[in-house]
Amino acid sequence: MDKLMETFEKNDPVALGRVLKEVESQSEKGYEILKRTNKEKGKAHVIGITGPPGAGKSTLTSKLCKQLVNKGFTIGIICVDPTSPFTGGALLGDRIRMQELAKLPNVFIKSLATRGSLGGMAHSTADIVQLMDSFGKDIIIIETVGVGQVEFDVLEISDSVVLIGVPGLGDAIQTVKAGIMEIADIYVVNQADRPGADESVKDLKLMIKESERKDWKPSVLKTIATEQEGISELIDELERHKTHLITTKAWEKKRKERNYNRFVGRLDEIVHESVEGQFKTNPKTQSIIEQVKEGTMNPFSAANKIAEYIIKS
Amino acid sequence: MDKLMETFEKNDPVALGRVLKEVESQSEKGYEILKRTNKEKGKAHVIGITGPPGAGKSTLTSKLCKQLVNKGFTIGIICVDPTSPFTGGALLGDRIRMQELAKLPNVFIKSLATRGSLGGMAHSTADIVQLMDSFGKDIIIIETVGVGQVEFDVLEISDSVVLIGVPGLGDAIQTVKAGIMEIADIYVVNQADRPGADESVKDLKLMIKESERKDWKPSVLKTIATEQEGISELIDELERHKTHLITTKAWEKKRKERNYNRFVGRLDEIVHESVEGQFKTNPKTQSIIEQVKEGTMNPFSAANKIAEYIIKS
Repeated sequence: MDKLMETFEKNDPVALGRVLKEVESQSEKGYEILKRTNKEKGKAHVIGITGPPGAGKSTLTSKLCKQLVNKGFTIGIICVDPTSPFTGGALLGDRIRMQELAKLPNVFIKSLATRGSLGGMAHSTADIVQLMDSFGKDIIIIETVGVGQVEFDVLEISDSVVLIGVPGLGDAIQTVKAGIMEIADIYVVNQADRPGADESVKDLKLMIKESERKDWKPSVLKTIATEQEGISELIDELERHKTHLITTKAWEKKRKERNYNRFVGRLDEIVHESVEGQFKTNPKTQSIIEQVKEGTMNPFSAANKIAEYIIKS
Repeated sequence: MDKLMETFEKNDPVALGRVLKEVESQSEKGYEILKRTNKEKGKAHVIGITGPPGAGKSTLTSKLCKQLVNKGFTIGIICVDPTSPFTGGALLGDRIRMQELAKLPNVFIKSLATRGSLGGMAHSTADIVQLMDSFGKDIIIIETVGVGQVEFDVLEISDSVVLIGVPGLGDAIQTVKAGIMEIADIYVVNQADRPGADESVKDLKLMIKESERKDWKPSVLKTIATEQEGISELIDELERHKTHLITTKAWEKKRKERNYNRFVGRLDEIVHESVEGQFKTNPKTQSIIEQVKEGTMNPFSAANKIAEYIIKS
């Protein structure tokens, strides 16, 4: 353990990998590591990248990452796929492209699939962000797939949220994405050489103008990720947003929030495990559960009864 | 209250509406109603309908519903939209089409948007299913949008899951949907007059053949919902699946599961509220939380400490 942490502190990527594995398996050792590495440096810029399937998230992440490495930054990438509890996240990103990235110096990639509980994904992501930050990564990119509450929770960990769209992907998906639009800090219209790109930009600008957001006016960028076009502008914009966050103290606030949310998440986990452990093993609760299943006791009265056994008043 | 329940038991749809509102607002009255109506009749066939945006879910649901009403069934529809915590579910289904449906005799529609907590949606849906069943609905249709864990949890409430696709919607969405595919009982290729329909059917059949599912072989139907084509075949297939469930006792098992999950859901809610209430008000916990935010105490030790205050050992 001590040796592992020693190599971790010496910036050995093998140690980072082992540490992440321990944390992911939720072992005692994992929690010990999280405790020890708590002194979050708070230095890393956490960037969330999202968008519908087919928008080119992986390509863009990959090109962005390469340019950042060339500029001397160290990078951590977290791929989050909340859509496939059954497939175990086998569809995460473009595996081959990602493997290529992993060969770059100072790039570390971690894939994350659902680990059972609904809230678990965002908490795991937050833990990994902390570990990567503690390890000394300058920039941490969270790439996430799909829509839904889990995506929101994951994106909320980020300092800067980038939403990637493509021209002509259809109104249906744009509509579904409406919720996400409100939390994006930077909009990217990728595959901007396709017809309809300028209209998409116009639509987005109009939408931003109409939004009630006051703290920051998101900009709309055009990229052709496959050709590396627009990537350096995206980097500049991310820098500008970071400066904005620091100036307005939102940067500091976000770090406090992150700490607090990780605490609440862990507390929920402990409580949940403890409650489950108790009502599954306590003989007094067994008959209640049987009655619930048979429909002879209503689930609400049963829940109240069992809560009384477990919670201190 | 007694009067409300009396009219509810007399099958007054106005009473059903009021009851659902109380339950949705999570008022004391709502919980009281859920307790009183617990005698789930267990009669209703719960059908989950899902598919990507643009596949024609609303149209198909609407045509299906009309034919079922003509056959003399009473219907409850629950529209679940887990994608828009920010917009408050404003994008739910096709509003106008749904309003038309609501004019039919014996049809009741309830829209449901995210109510904050991640797990909350599935629990609310399960509560509404119970109420509609208790009210005497023969068939309850849960229409859900999007992908993600929430969708899974919602679909798990259903007896029969129908997955709607369209020809040529692209591999990207199909891939994302891979998880869902494994829980579908009936596949529908809608807009089957569009090119590529037969290939989609072939692909799906191949996928089913390769799947490891043994309890039930899902069939693949073609529909053109706008023209009412294929709807009666879908009804036949739903009947066949229902019979299969009853014969194999999966029907009974699902009802026990539903009761149990509603209990666990409610227990989680109670525990969560109680824990939050305690750590937000207890002065002893305040300094711990401050230290967590500042990063001087790690979130995991803090969570352990606070759990000790709250949980009986």
